[in-house]
Formats: sequence, structure tokens, C-alpha cells
Amino acid sequence: MKRIFLAATASLALSSAASAELLVEKNIPLDLAVEIASEAVASCKANGYEVSAAVVDRAGVLRALMRSDDAGPHTPSSSTSKAYTSASLRIKTGEMADLIAKNPTAAELASIEGFLALGGGIPIKTGDVVIGGVGVGGAPGGHLDEACAQAGIDKVQDRLK
Amino acid sequence: MKRIFLAATASLALSSAASAELLVEKNIPLDLAVEIASEAVASCKANGYEVSAAVVDRAGVLRALMRSDDAGPHTPSSSTSKAYTSASLRIKTGEMADLIAKNPTAAELASIEGFLALGGGIPIKTGDVVIGGVGVGGAPGGHLDEACAQAGIDKVQDRLK
Amino acid sequence: MKRIFLAATASLALSSAASAELLVEKNIPLDLAVEIASEAVASCKANGYEVSAAVVDRAGVLRALMRSDDAGPHTPSSSTSKAYTSASLRIKTGEMADLIAKNPTAAELASIEGFLALGGGIPIKTGDVVIGGVGVGGAPGGHLDEACAQAGIDKVQDRLK
Amino acid sequence: MKRIFLAATASLALSSAASAELLVEKNIPLDLAVEIASEAVASCKANGYEVSAAVVDRAGVLRALMRSDDAGPHTPSSSTSKAYTSASLRIKTGEMADLIAKNPTAAELASIEGFLALGGGIPIKTGDVVIGGVGVGGAPGGHLDEACAQAGIDKVQDRLK
Amino acid sequence: MKRIFLAATASLALSSAASAELLVEKNIPLDLAVEIASEAVASCKANGYEVSAAVVDRAGVLRALMRSDDAGPHTPSSSTSKAYTSASLRIKTGEMADLIAKNPTAAELASIEGFLALGGGIPIKTGDVVIGGVGVGGAPGGHLDEACAQAGIDKVQDRLK
Amino acid sequence: MKRIFLAATASLALSSAASAELLVEKNIPLDLAVEIASEAVASCKANGYEVSAAVVDRAGVLRALMRSDDAGPHTPSSSTSKAYTSASLRIKTGEMADLIAKNPTAAELASIEGFLALGGGIPIKTGDVVIGGVGVGGAPGGHLDEACAQAGIDKVQDRLK
Amino acid sequence: MKRIFLAATASLALSSAASAELLVEKNIPLDLAVEIASEAVASCKANGYEVSAAVVDRAGVLRALMRSDDAGPHTPSSSTSKAYTSASLRIKTGEMADLIAKNPTAAELASIEGFLALGGGIPIKTGDVVIGGVGVGGAPGGHLDEACAQAGIDKVQDRLK
Amino acid sequence: MKRIFLAATASLALSSAASAELLVEKNIPLDLAVEIASEAVASCKANGYEVSAAVVDRAGVLRALMRSDDAGPHTPSSSTSKAYTSASLRIKTGEMADLIAKNPTAAELASIEGFLALGGGIPIKTGDVVIGGVGVGGAPGGHLDEACAQAGIDKVQDRLK
Repeated sequence: MKRIFLAATASLALSSAASAELLVEKNIPLDLAVEIASEAVASCKANGYEVSAAVVDRAGVLRALMRSDDAGPHTPSSSTSKAYTSASLRIKTGEMADLIAKNPTAAELASIEGFLALGGGIPIKTGDVVIGGVGVGGAPGGHLDEACAQAGIDKVQDRLK
Repeated sequence: MKRIFLAATASLALSSAASAELLVEKNIPLDLAVEIASEAVASCKANGYEVSAAVVDRAGVLRALMRSDDAGPHTPSSSTSKAYTSASLRIKTGEMADLIAKNPTAAELASIEGFLALGGGIPIKTGDVVIGGVGVGGAPGGHLDEACAQAGIDKVQDRLK
Repeated sequence: MKRIFLAATASLALSSAASAELLVEKNIPLDLAVEIASEAVASCKANGYEVSAAVVDRAGVLRALMRSDDAGPHTPSSSTSKAYTSASLRIKTGEMADLIAKNPTAAELASIEGFLALGGGIPIKTGDVVIGGVGVGGAPGGHLDEACAQAGIDKVQDRLK
Repeated sequence: MKRIFLAATASLALSSAASAELLVEKNIPLDLAVEIASEAVASCKANGYEVSAAVVDRAGVLRALMRSDDAGPHTPSSSTSKAYTSASLRIKTGEMADLIAKNPTAAELASIEGFLALGGGIPIKTGDVVIGGVGVGGAPGGHLDEACAQAGIDKVQDRLK
Repeated sequence: MKRIFLAATASLALSSAASAELLVEKNIPLDLAVEIASEAVASCKANGYEVSAAVVDRAGVLRALMRSDDAGPHTPSSSTSKAYTSASLRIKTGEMADLIAKNPTAAELASIEGFLALGGGIPIKTGDVVIGGVGVGGAPGGHLDEACAQAGIDKVQDRLK
Repeated sequence: MKRIFLAATASLALSSAASAELLVEKNIPLDLAVEIASEAVASCKANGYEVSAAVVDRAGVLRALMRSDDAGPHTPSSSTSKAYTSASLRIKTGEMADLIAKNPTAAELASIEGFLALGGGIPIKTGDVVIGGVGVGGAPGGHLDEACAQAGIDKVQDRLK
Repeated sequence: MKRIFLAATASLALSSAASAELLVEKNIPLDLAVEIASEAVASCKANGYEVSAAVVDRAGVLRALMRSDDAGPHTPSSSTSKAYTSASLRIKTGEMADLIAKNPTAAELASIEGFLALGGGIPIKTGDVVIGGVGVGGAPGGHLDEACAQAGIDKVQDRLK
Repeated sequence: MKRIFLAATASLALSSAASAELLVEKNIPLDLAVEIASEAVASCKANGYEVSAAVVDRAGVLRALMRSDDAGPHTPSSSTSKAYTSASLRIKTGEMADLIAKNPTAAELASIEGFLALGGGIPIKTGDVVIGGVGVGGAPGGHLDEACAQAGIDKVQDRLK
């Protein structure tokens, strides 16, 4: 009789949470990722900040990374973590940092593997769908990193569709 | 004479802490784990949340994991960590997060290897004995993750004996 | 003048390697992943082998995992690694193991982060496109693990399109 | 209609691989683990070898470890890895090392997370059921480590039931 | 002339910080470590707490570990980390947790590799010299873990000289 | 036409952030690093503190490390992390700890891979250019570690040009 | 008298191995790194291979990375490791793989932290001085990866001075 | 009755493997470690090889490290691993590499955590007792690294007592 109850329970559970057809997903191509990263680096440089900018795809896998001539050796890691965090959690890392500062029980969000809860990460979206993330690290303040990340997205905004 | 004192001290110490008979332990089987995970994923999906749900056995080893079609790439790790934390510490991760928020000297509980102090993890019990743990990650709030985890347990509650 | 040469060189390089349009990709949904994993576990069990079966998506992120009641604690990790390897390298891990055995200079393929060069991993394809991977671990031989993984894919083959 | 096919496929797959009743498992208690480890250390010491001996439970979690006064700092890690490997793979690590030496396509078994394919690890069994593992590291040869591990098991053999 | 200034500076610097004679150091032997660990486990068990107790030597290397029959799978790691922290930092981990709670700029002490700032770790001393550390994990509160660790030390106190 | 827009965008972006000529960078040599580390260790020793002192180059790679005869086993790691943090972030780790204590949204700076936000790290500069970092760990307070690190730099200050 | 002998020995040792003047080093700028990476990706793409290309600076720190639209998720890691290996060891990773295949006692070179002994990595030199490394991963053979890496270097060869 | 058998078995086992008196151990001081490392670096430099030299104490904990001005960024890690391996296993890493090349079942020795089976590591002994290890990395061949390590030991040989 075990076969029968499993059939029943499993069917009830998954039928509303999954689809038997293959998924069709949009994703960020290398070309746009390079533009986003280079604009983010250049935007920070124009303000005197040496940074790394990383772009990950919708699955959080690195697509492009650039480190400015005088950006510190920690910035490839910090920019990639910010990009991953934004792509996977689907909010700006700056908002996440604010959330954590206000809500101690959310503080451990920052401890999830691969996450970094510092301003500078922004989800890359087409409409409402997240198709990647950009992260910037190296400026003296998360809001400054975020402004450069936003400049990168702005550069290609009209082609994110 | 060393032999003699060791005999005495070791016997005093361990005789009350261990048994020489083999232990006989209950554990969560795959079948129930699959039901718990699928119901947890489905319950969140019904509310619009894309999550991963993980079930670990009494030793904290992964038994089953499901990731919803649009759940972020960080959720397999976060859900597994919540399940592990609940199974090993034997409290809900949400209670653990509250405890830490109130008691700074307990904050480092969250730093134990493999632990994640975010709501969404629940011990799986038969009577008072913990036989595993379920963890859910991906909903916008630990209490929402926990509700889905509870839905998973509720589905099989009458068979946890 | 620097601006000008960069424009030239970068454009030459990337224009043939990337597209400015968003990528549209097929991916394995949870529903099929659960069927593949459960069939793989059941197929091994029918032959007396206790295994874990893992399914990852096209980006190598875990989608579903099941561990048989008596499968060893190492099998969640080994099955996931085999699935990841097959999805990312796009060959069966058994072929990869053969390749390495014959060609010492390829041996270090096995050292790539997250890879495991043991039979039991198979890419999941729709037509010629890899949309995920399945890995099985725990049977006494990579060819036995692979047979179970294949059974999982066979079960859903007609819907992989 | 999706609900119906899932009910069918999932039930067919898992019904033979899992049981809906809770599992009841035997496991190694601390008391016997301490005896095994101390006898293994003493047996090696009697032959002039300074070693660590580790005992893990059926899930591969450390139950007891002892390091001889002059055993090297690497031996806690090597003995624990051997114990884990034997408990999870359910063969002696010495047999595993022989297997790998003869069969290049099996060589990557040694790369599974937490595994160490060096003689000195032995599964602890009650009848045919593995309930843990013992590993010894530090003697100048895997067969020497294994002899000490065996001495540890022999000491409690009549109580492993 | 470089040779000359280096001779001067290096000699000034190191001559007061190091000795050219070999160091002679006291260290905790296995025998006492086993007594400490077993008494700590037994002491907690007598109060209804299932714990792991770990003893490390003066260099922080594991000397002995015991995990009670029903202690969670995280406790080998947490007890070892507490023992390491106490042996290396040379204070009780409970005092360290208090220090961190009062002094935010000290909080990152807890992030040092291998450290865990939770009550339950105590340095093992002979006179004023630290020769090891004991850590206990698993009781519902760091002060409870610490009491068991202290019981372990008390048992051998008269022989720590 | 894609080639053309890429030429335009990439050129605009990177032309201000990078130079096509090879970079020419100053870096800390071994000789000075040894003097800094040995003076830092000696300075702490003179005050009764047993520490490790580490010097990294401008890229954060270890150049020299010395551990005092009775400094704890955690100090090579903590001193190296402080040196890396200061070299890469280009501020004293003590200032970083103060910043974090005052500004919760900056707290996660401490979580960047390889960073340690505890007093005791100081950038090594020639003029305004950072060419390395020194970190000290083991004294009972970050300000005490920092004083020793400063003593190390002071010793070679006139040659940092 | 200790001060005196130390002055003598230390001065003899280091005076020939280090210089008290600051080092002046050439390094690869972002602009050239972007050209190398983009040409490497494009060169492989032109032959039908989807790859990642990574460029590290002389210290092995990532300077630029690009992943082709359909390159596997393992390629950012494998390309970065090859680039690091070539920059630090200062030979092509293909030569390293050949060396290891011929000389078993050199095999463990491949186990150095961060190294990957697979063809596809090439040191970037100005004259005889290594100022970085490029690594390519994803083509079906190390020699194919290497050809693309070489194409990247060739593109900027005349400016590497 | 359990108390009685435990008294008997534990006493038999450990009484010959451990001593209840505190251990008294010789260890390498910083002063000699600095001489060994600096001589090793200088010896290699005199032959045109840029290396790192690391000295660990008897417990494998880093005591001193120096990296030559142009030694690759991987050499701090490789030299430290060689030193650790030699100190803990108590043979030269070159002998270990030979052993592995001849004996496939010993190959996995190289996989022990922290070990590196490449020539260049030598135990530091006083009489027959190992009190530390020195490792050199960066020369083009393990035998060349070993010669420099030996030069370091030779420099202080008469004081290793």
C-alpha cells in the first residue's frame, strides 16, 4: 500500500511547484557583461576610486570581471561576492545591509555561503526577471561602489530586454 | 602503579556517560524525507515563494533536497545548513536567531561549522527524539521559510512514530 | 589616442564571441529532476545498491538529491560532484575517467574545483544541448552507478524537449 | 494532468527504494569507541609506533579520538579520514588502496570529500551491518596502522552485537 | 655596506625576543587528556547533557576527543574549536565571549581562524604556563559546558605539575 | 553593427580607467620586511607580549613572518590576515574596527575573504603609495599589537622611499 | 653575547638575497588584460570552443576574466587557476603537465594550492620578466586552450615592453 | 558491572601508550628559525633561485618565513607545506616523493591535509628527536630546494642540542 500513498502525497506536493516542461530562461550574455563591468570600473575611476567590477549570470556564475590598475587584491573576491549575492537574493546588497542593521534576527543572512552584505551589488533585470548581478568593490563606502555598479547597468539598460 | 589509577579514574568517568551495548536509534527514511521536502516546496510555491527544501537525517547528513524552478542558487546551501543546524542543535533555527538577538554572548553559536542561524529550520521528531531536520531557504523572511518547513512536517506527522 | 585603439581591438575580439541580445536557455525543471533522481535511486536499489542520486541544472546548481536509506554519508557529495562534472564538462564522468587513465597529461582534469572523475555522471540533454546533469554514487563500481543514472534519464527521455 | 503522471512515476520509483516506517539502526556507543581507540593506540605503542586512533559512528561523525604522546600533528586528521572512509565506503582503506593501484579508473575514489585511501581504516560491524569505522595513522606503513586498528576491534569483538 | 646595517638592526631586534638555545616546553600527555575528556563528558551526562569534550595540546593539536552517545554531530567541531581557542589565546572562551559582548572593537577576535567565542573552553595550566586546552560543546548554555570542562580539569589538577 | 557599438562603449569605459603602458610599481623587499617583522616582535617582547609579526607585499602575498617563542598557534594566521587587510584596504585595521563599531552597515567589511578587522595591521607606505602591510597578533589588545607594528615601520621609515 | 652572533649570521645570510632599496616592478595593466582575455575568448569561439579566459597580474591576482556565452560553470575557476599557475611558476601549464607525466616525483607540483597542471596557461612576459599570466579553460584539450591563450598574448605582444 | 570492565580494559590499553606525568619537549626557537630561513633563502639566491623558506616548530606551526624578492606568490604556501610535512612525518619530503613514485599504494600519503610530497622539506632534529621542519619552494627542482634547506640547517647544526 505504500506505493499508493506516495503517489498521492508526492503528486499533491509537487504539481503546483514545478513544471514538467523544460524551463526557458533569459540570461546575461558576455557582451553586455563586459560593457557593464567596464563602465562600472570607468565610472569609479572617474571619481578617483580604484575598484573591481564583477558580473555573474542568473545562476551566480562569473561572466566577466575587471580590476582597475590600482585596486586592492581583495576586490576580485568582494566584487564577485556582491554580484553573486544580488543575483541570488534578488535585492541590492545595500538594501540587504540596511535590513540587517535594523533587524538582528536577519543578521545571519550575511553568513550564507558566498554572500557579502555590503553595498555595491545590484541585480541585473529584464523587466521583473533577474538575469544576473553586478558587484563593485574598492571604493571607500558601499554607496560609492553601488553608484558605479548602477552606472554599469544604466549603460546597457535599453538592451536588457 | 599508573595502570591502577587510570583504571579507577576512567571507569568513574565514563561509566555513567556511555553504554557498552550497541545503540539502537530511529532515523528518518528517504520516503518520508521526500514527502516533507516536496510539501515544503509546494507550500511555499503556493504563496509565491521559490525555495529549496532540504531534509537531513539524525546525523545531519543530507537525505533529500529539492529546489524550486526559480529559487536562487544559494538556496541549496542555505536550506541544508538550516536543516543541519536544527537536527544537531535540536531547536528551530528561528528560536536560535531570537536567542542570539537577545543574548550577545550566544551570538557565536551561529559560527559553529555548518550552522546557519536564520529561521526556516525545524527538528524532525518522533516523540521527544530528534531523528532529522528540515530546512527551507528562499522566501523573503525566516518566518515564511519556517511555515513551509512546518507544512512539510505536518504532512507526515502521523507517520513519525 | 588610447581610446581609439581600445575601441578597435575590443570590438574585433568580442564581436564574434558574444551576442548583445539576451541569451535564451533551456533548463531542467524540478519536476523532471525529481523523477530522474527517484528512478536512479530505485533502479540501484532493485539491484541491491544503496546510493545517492543528484540532479544539477545547466549551471551546475543542485536541483534535486535523494539518498537511499542505507547509502553512505559520502554519497551526497560524490553524486553531486559527478552531476556537476557531467553538466559542466558535457561528457559522462565514466568517459572522463577512461580518458584520464589513457592520457596522463589530462589527469589533472580531475583536480578542477568541484569535479569528480568517477563513473556515474551523465549530462542531461535536450537534443544536443546540455541542460543539466545527473550523478549517482554508492554502488560498487562506476559502471553500476552510471547504469542507474541512465535509468533515471531514460524515464523522462521523451519529455526532454 | 501533471498531477497524475507525477503520482505514477514517483510512486513507481521510490516505493522499492525507501520505507515509510522510521528506520531503526544500530550504532557504536562511546564506551566501545573509547576501548577500540585506546587499544589501537596501545597496540601501536607496544611496537614502537606513535599514532592517532579515531572512531567514527555509522554516519561518519567522530565518536572518539586519541593521539599518542609523540604522534605527529597530522595524525588526528589522517586517522579520522581513514575511519570516515571505512565507515562510509564499508571496506578497509587498505583494500581500497590496492584497488586503486590496480585500477586507474578507480583512482578518483580517493578524491571523494573526506576520503583517504591509505591502509589503516577498518569498518566496525555487527554481523554484516557497518556501525562505524576505526582509523589509525602514524605508523610507518598502512599495514602497520591497520594491524593496530584491528587490535582495537578485536578487543571488543564479542560485544559488537 | 648593506651587510653591516642588517647585522646591526636584526641583532637589536631579535636579541631580546628569542633565545638561541632550544626551547624546553611542558605539554599535556594523552593519559591526562583522556581523563579530562572522560570526566567532562561524564559530568555533563550526570546533569542530563549530551556533549563532546576535546583536549588539545599546547600547540592546539587535538590530543583526545569523546562524544557522548546522543551528542549532536556538530559537537566534535565546536568542542575542538573551544579547546583550540583557549589553548592559543590563553583565556576561557566564556571570558572571551563576555569581552566581545562589551567591546565591539574586539568582536572580530571571534573570526580568527579556528576560534569559537562560546563558553566551554578552558586553558589547561601547570602553574602559570598553558600546556593545552579543554573544550566542551552540546550543553544548553556556555556556562554549563564550562562547568563540565572545569570538572575535567579538577579531576587531574594535582597532577598538572 | 554590433562590432561598432562595442567599440564605442568599451572605449569610452576603459580609456579612463586603465593604461596601455605596463604599470611600474614599487614594492617592499625582503630585507626591509625582515627588519620590520623582527623589530615588531622585539618591541612586543620588550613589553612582555609574545606575538607573531607578518609582512605582506603590495599584492598581499606574505613576504616575512616571525613568531615569538611563546606566541600562540593562532598568531601566524591572525598577523597575516591583519597585514593583508591593511595592505589591500589601505587603512589601519584598528581604524577599520572603529569604523565597523560605529557603522553597522559596514560591519560586513570584516567578512571579506582574508580580512580580519582587529587592531594590529598598518599599511606600509612610500609617500602616499601603499607598498605592503604589517600585522601583529598575540598582545592582549589590538592597540598593543598596533604599537608593535608601528615600531617595526618606524625602524625602516627613512628607507621607505 | 647572543646579539653578536645573530648580527653576524643574519647579515651573512640575507645580504646576498635581498635589497634594502624598494623594489621597482613592471605589471600588467587592465587595458592589456582586457585585450588578451577578449582575444583569447574570440579565438576559441572562432574555432567552435566556448571558454573562459582569465588574466592575473604578476602576483597572481585576477585582473580580468571573461566567460563565453556557453562555457561551462567550471571554466572561471579552471582558467584562473591556469593563469595563476603560469604567472607564479613561470612556465606554460602545458609544459608542466608534460613534465609531470614524465617525472612521477614531480607529480605533486600539481597539488600546490591554487595550481592546475593542465595545458592552457601561459606566462605574460616583458622581455624575460614575468608580469602576469593568462589561462584558458573549456576547449576539448589543453593544447586547444593554449592556442587561444597564445592568440591573446600575440594580440598585444608589441606593447608588452 | 560496566564500571569494572571499563576500568580493566582502559587501564590495559593506555597504560603502555601514555604517561601521567607532563611531557617535556624540546622545540625550535625563533632565533634559530630565522637563521635557518635566511640562510636557505640566501643559499638559493647565490645559485640564482628565488625561493621562500619556511620553518615550523615541532607541532607544525609556522615559526618563521621569508620570501625572496622575486619568488612566486605560490612559494609561501609550498614552502610551509613542505616544512609541515617533514616535521610531522619526520622524513625528508624528497624521500617521501621517491617512496610514492615506487609504491602506488602509498601515493595517497600526499593527500593528507597540509602535506606536500615534493622535495625541499627536511626535519630539524636534535639528536634523534624532531623539533621542527624547514621547507623551501621556488627552485626549478625539488633537489635544488632541498639543498638550500640543508644549507639552512647546516648553519645552525652545532646549536641544535
